[in-house]
Amino acid sequence: MVKEMNRREFVKASAATGALLMAADVGSVFAQELKPIELPKPQLDGGRPLMQCLKDRKTTREYSAQKIPLQVLSNLLWAAYGINRPETGYRTAPSGGNVQNVDIYVAIEEGTYVYDAKANMLAQVLKEDIRNFSGRQTTSRLDDSPLNLIYVVDLSKFTRGPELFVAYAFAHSAFIAQNAYLYCASEGLATVVRISYNKATVAQKLNLKTNQYPTFVQSVGYPKK
Amino acid sequence: MVKEMNRREFVKASAATGALLMAADVGSVFAQELKPIELPKPQLDGGRPLMQCLKDRKTTREYSAQKIPLQVLSNLLWAAYGINRPETGYRTAPSGGNVQNVDIYVAIEEGTYVYDAKANMLAQVLKEDIRNFSGRQTTSRLDDSPLNLIYVVDLSKFTRGPELFVAYAFAHSAFIAQNAYLYCASEGLATVVRISYNKATVAQKLNLKTNQYPTFVQSVGYPKK
Repeated sequence: MVKEMNRREFVKASAATGALLMAADVGSVFAQELKPIELPKPQLDGGRPLMQCLKDRKTTREYSAQKIPLQVLSNLLWAAYGINRPETGYRTAPSGGNVQNVDIYVAIEEGTYVYDAKANMLAQVLKEDIRNFSGRQTTSRLDDSPLNLIYVVDLSKFTRGPELFVAYAFAHSAFIAQNAYLYCASEGLATVVRISYNKATVAQKLNLKTNQYPTFVQSVGYPKK
Repeated sequence: MVKEMNRREFVKASAATGALLMAADVGSVFAQELKPIELPKPQLDGGRPLMQCLKDRKTTREYSAQKIPLQVLSNLLWAAYGINRPETGYRTAPSGGNVQNVDIYVAIEEGTYVYDAKANMLAQVLKEDIRNFSGRQTTSRLDDSPLNLIYVVDLSKFTRGPELFVAYAFAHSAFIAQNAYLYCASEGLATVVRISYNKATVAQKLNLKTNQYPTFVQSVGYPKK
């Protein structure tokens, strides 16, 4: 909807639909047992020439069972939304007013984490494999990606209002997702972004607060042979 | 707003706000005198390594007066939203359901054109320099970019409904804009994406139809020395 609204109205509208944010705001999103994963330093000297990456940019929905090595995951997350100017904390993808209000949740077999770009680590969110709820099961096919990135926008970080919240949320997420697309093209990984998935269940599983708005899920894996 | 709506409701809502789509649907968007510009073939063998492009990805709001050479413009447009798989017509940026519903309007001093990716040309829209209305003048500064890309989404091309139109419109535009960001990083060009600009005037100048929804303006130029 084109009409501008302030955050209070937006959250109210979101809650009213009940479609996206069903989880009650009952506390921390972190599981009791925290087992953060330290990521290896991202390799910034690699990558194929940009125009070749763009030439190979495509959507792929079928994956092999091969897991993503931790180094590749670190590179992927940095490419998508890492800090590319440590002196200012600016990132590889823009955001209006530099609000940096997107969190990337990382769903793998072992559990669900959230990417901490500054610390270059994965903080544990949930000791559960939620890939089935975040994209493997669609209406048309079952995807067996070893990794799902779930983009979640923090609406409370919008400092300028009233604003087009949905517009900003999806724009900010898409800037990041396109970076990930190109990294996948560079590295021979398969990926797809989807806007349709079981958002209510994902929000509940991740214990999202009412100001946390899930946008895309991006599946990543090695292509099926 | 999170509530899903069908296209009829969306267009109605858009018209009701009057903020974006003030132009009446009075006919062709093309000016009487058509002077299309044939673009040189895009150079697909170039570009710096992807991780270097991501490292240098940034927003720059000040430009030199130097114009963008036609070859660079051709490369930029192909990188942003060119056809990367001629056999299927698929493009460098994804779209939900492959609707390919974004048009890139190209505003330069000589006039305003629209990018035809298939023909690799610029079709003339308006013999007027509308850069002043599409981003040079902002609330905080005057930008003198030699080129403004105006992303316009055709809502009539959404085939699956009811859908989150604003979400799709901004997501599709942002995938493209991030490609352009990375091309600029690769080529040492300065760029900024803005969501706030004089949309009503731009819609009127471009004679947009009610189903055409302008999202971003992306300014591009060489950085000010």
